[in-house]
Amino acid sequence: MSSLTLNDRLQSFVNNRFFEWTAVTVIIASALLLGAKTFEIGSRATQVLNVLDWAITVFFVLEISVKFAACKDKKRFFHNPWNLFDTLIVAVSLIPVTATDQALIARLVRVFRVLRMVSIIPELRILLNSLIKALPQLGYVILLMFIIFYIYAAVGTTIFEQINPVLWGDIAVSLLTLFRVMTFEDWTDVMYETMTVYPLSWAYYLSFIFFTAFAFLNMVIGIVVNVLDQEQARAKAEEHPNEPTLSDLQSEIAELKALIVSNNSPSKS
Amino acid sequence: MSSLTLNDRLQSFVNNRFFEWTAVTVIIASALLLGAKTFEIGSRATQVLNVLDWAITVFFVLEISVKFAACKDKKRFFHNPWNLFDTLIVAVSLIPVTATDQALIARLVRVFRVLRMVSIIPELRILLNSLIKALPQLGYVILLMFIIFYIYAAVGTTIFEQINPVLWGDIAVSLLTLFRVMTFEDWTDVMYETMTVYPLSWAYYLSFIFFTAFAFLNMVIGIVVNVLDQEQARAKAEEHPNEPTLSDLQSEIAELKALIVSNNSPSKS
Amino acid sequence: MSSLTLNDRLQSFVNNRFFEWTAVTVIIASALLLGAKTFEIGSRATQVLNVLDWAITVFFVLEISVKFAACKDKKRFFHNPWNLFDTLIVAVSLIPVTATDQALIARLVRVFRVLRMVSIIPELRILLNSLIKALPQLGYVILLMFIIFYIYAAVGTTIFEQINPVLWGDIAVSLLTLFRVMTFEDWTDVMYETMTVYPLSWAYYLSFIFFTAFAFLNMVIGIVVNVLDQEQARAKAEEHPNEPTLSDLQSEIAELKALIVSNNSPSKS
Amino acid sequence: MSSLTLNDRLQSFVNNRFFEWTAVTVIIASALLLGAKTFEIGSRATQVLNVLDWAITVFFVLEISVKFAACKDKKRFFHNPWNLFDTLIVAVSLIPVTATDQALIARLVRVFRVLRMVSIIPELRILLNSLIKALPQLGYVILLMFIIFYIYAAVGTTIFEQINPVLWGDIAVSLLTLFRVMTFEDWTDVMYETMTVYPLSWAYYLSFIFFTAFAFLNMVIGIVVNVLDQEQARAKAEEHPNEPTLSDLQSEIAELKALIVSNNSPSKS
Repeated sequence: MSSLTLNDRLQSFVNNRFFEWTAVTVIIASALLLGAKTFEIGSRATQVLNVLDWAITVFFVLEISVKFAACKDKKRFFHNPWNLFDTLIVAVSLIPVTATDQALIARLVRVFRVLRMVSIIPELRILLNSLIKALPQLGYVILLMFIIFYIYAAVGTTIFEQINPVLWGDIAVSLLTLFRVMTFEDWTDVMYETMTVYPLSWAYYLSFIFFTAFAFLNMVIGIVVNVLDQEQARAKAEEHPNEPTLSDLQSEIAELKALIVSNNSPSKS
Repeated sequence: MSSLTLNDRLQSFVNNRFFEWTAVTVIIASALLLGAKTFEIGSRATQVLNVLDWAITVFFVLEISVKFAACKDKKRFFHNPWNLFDTLIVAVSLIPVTATDQALIARLVRVFRVLRMVSIIPELRILLNSLIKALPQLGYVILLMFIIFYIYAAVGTTIFEQINPVLWGDIAVSLLTLFRVMTFEDWTDVMYETMTVYPLSWAYYLSFIFFTAFAFLNMVIGIVVNVLDQEQARAKAEEHPNEPTLSDLQSEIAELKALIVSNNSPSKS
Repeated sequence: MSSLTLNDRLQSFVNNRFFEWTAVTVIIASALLLGAKTFEIGSRATQVLNVLDWAITVFFVLEISVKFAACKDKKRFFHNPWNLFDTLIVAVSLIPVTATDQALIARLVRVFRVLRMVSIIPELRILLNSLIKALPQLGYVILLMFIIFYIYAAVGTTIFEQINPVLWGDIAVSLLTLFRVMTFEDWTDVMYETMTVYPLSWAYYLSFIFFTAFAFLNMVIGIVVNVLDQEQARAKAEEHPNEPTLSDLQSEIAELKALIVSNNSPSKS
Repeated sequence: MSSLTLNDRLQSFVNNRFFEWTAVTVIIASALLLGAKTFEIGSRATQVLNVLDWAITVFFVLEISVKFAACKDKKRFFHNPWNLFDTLIVAVSLIPVTATDQALIARLVRVFRVLRMVSIIPELRILLNSLIKALPQLGYVILLMFIIFYIYAAVGTTIFEQINPVLWGDIAVSLLTLFRVMTFEDWTDVMYETMTVYPLSWAYYLSFIFFTAFAFLNMVIGIVVNVLDQEQARAKAEEHPNEPTLSDLQSEIAELKALIVSNNSPSKS
């Protein structure tokens, strides 16, 4: 055990709880720094923040380097999407920024450092993975919902374009207007405007709200049923992995019967 | 197998995955075309779009013809509501349009082509069928909700008509106003206006919101329970179709007992 | 069977499907009449509607009389709350109206005739009963929610009264304002106004939204769990009323064992 | 039984249903008093209210003293957080108020007396405890939601600060603006404003709404699944505490088989 290679030592260092918490602390510090910079602060404070910013960047470079060094199979390091994400974030923040336009991008990259919180806390990573896994199962409901949106947007553009081009000018803004109607945000203003020209256009809005609410409801119920199914399957698997089924018991009782019968016959003779 | 009739060949062609995907692609193209037309485009692009439009119409005519030719029992072809729907959409888009009024209708018919997406993708067809099946079970809750709406609309029209005829002029606009209140869309503006005349009219709005929210909640729970019931029934049926019940086991144990008893008696003698 | 009393005949008449559907039709007619009156109509049409109104009143009187005559135990007729409700509605609509003030009340009574729909259709009666039954189980959550509302209203009135007496003048209007905030209806206007004086007052609104949303969520989940429990209990009771438990089977196997052992001992001797 | 100590007598007095109901009545009275004071009332009524206020304070002091006296283990009295809360509320309302600034605080303390309702009614105490217990299980979803909020707020401040400093001035107001967007409260006004400068900024709002709605949905489903799991565990534990498992039955049948086999062998010899 004293003959640990550098790699092994690095690995135990990386998997150390202390290493993880240090990284989390630095990420939180970088998030707070990010927030602090949005307030009006003196030039002195700005200088301090800039120094801190560089310190955090250096820490992130060191952290990712140690992680890479600790990884036994260097080739597979970037197969893990989280490692790839971490490296990209660090690499981009190293690019020197001179022009003002790039300054905006540099600041945005620093924002994504906060997302490293997700890549470093295992529970959040699991949570995000399970969220992403739930999406494809809803694919067809989302497709149906988009078809409803598209048809209503096409009809809305065709009929209401002359009334208010800002809301119904082309299919893109119509889709946005319909999303607004779905969130009930001042939807009556949109409706009252078209009702002055087409008094029956309330039917357009009400049917749209009905269809999307119904499809949305089905999406929610779909997720609930999925989650409950998974829960039940997990609970079943966990609690009684070797629990016999009723069929097992039935066949065993049948065996018993055969035994008794065979038991009976020879004892008779 | 070489002696396939034309009908058989057509059928295998229609059921072919490639045929389905081609149709889906053309429908998506027609949807994009529909969207593209709503943007301001040059006369050159309009000409291109018109040509594409005719190409799509021709494809749809061919597709429905092939499907009809492939159908063995021609009489039952239109018994399938999706076939009827597809044929109608295609037939209407073939009618030549001259007057400007009809142009609007012609464009709307083209919108419904997007709905053919539902008729052609089996998963969406199943989804829509299951949505439609869930509706009648909710019939009485919807009826109850409509009664609540109607009574409140009648009371609202009677009391508030003088205050704001635009919102409470007759029972039809009152129903619309109440729907707006139910979506919480600027409902306090409606309430504050009537409260200047009837200070206690908040009770009208709050009781309405309470009743509709409660009825809506029951509707949602009704759907959830329905879906979960169906899921459980399906899961039960799928997993253990021949699983014996506890009663079965009980009667088999009783048989065993009888066997042992009868076994016992003769061996004694 | 020819010796049926008048009472028996009336009862079979009342329970007749035709009688029920006639009553439903007349109620729907009275509802439509109610709606029609809210529109601007000529004096001729008004006269027709008034005649129809009297015809419906007469029908309702006849219907309730027949029902009362058909009831065997006259004393218990009014023990049924629906009968009491029906009689009250009919009785009040018989009072002659002369003054203009009373005309409003007379119209409102006619509105409640629509509620007779619920008293006459058994399915709606069952639905309403089950809704009412679900309420007391939620009693304590509603009480908790009211306590939250009351405390926030008291705090709001104390602190914000000087800023906007219309919204925070006394505890009654504060409760209404908080209900408005809970429905997210222009709640930021309310917040921004108080934030000009107390910049930290966003904490007041956000904590209120959090608490009420959380309590509301628990109320909804409470109903869902209740309904699912009832469903499961009902499903269990319905499907296998005489299904033995695993304990029953265990005791029967124990009996078997005793039988075999006792069987064994004497055969040895 | 005549040799009851003072302590025992006090304890039976405190646990008495009558004592509890008296306390609840006084708390409700204090709540009503609190509400009454927010209305414009004459100086005479104010005097009456002040006397009532002192009477309630005296009652609360007596009640907490009796409870303390009734408690056998004085040291552990304040280990119960509800007792600590009750004592604090009473103690603070005893501090004499002179300055006007303190008057506001004194009134706020009186508001928290209403919360004593929760500490005195056992059902509300249980409800609140179960609500608080549900929170930590949601910890990681809330953390994920906060990360989403923080990232969007940082991006929003960086990009939109120049457009509207009131809404996007620093990260704190951006967080508030995003909370407003999540509640759909005039969110299109916020969006349309930034879209005049950055036409593609709708993607910012729509993706934010999508992410938060999705995370929120998962939080709700998390609670539902938790509650249902607890319900099922409770139902299982309650109904059949000694119910044998199928495995138990299987091993008992195996024993039976062994018995029969052993039974068989000796009888053969």
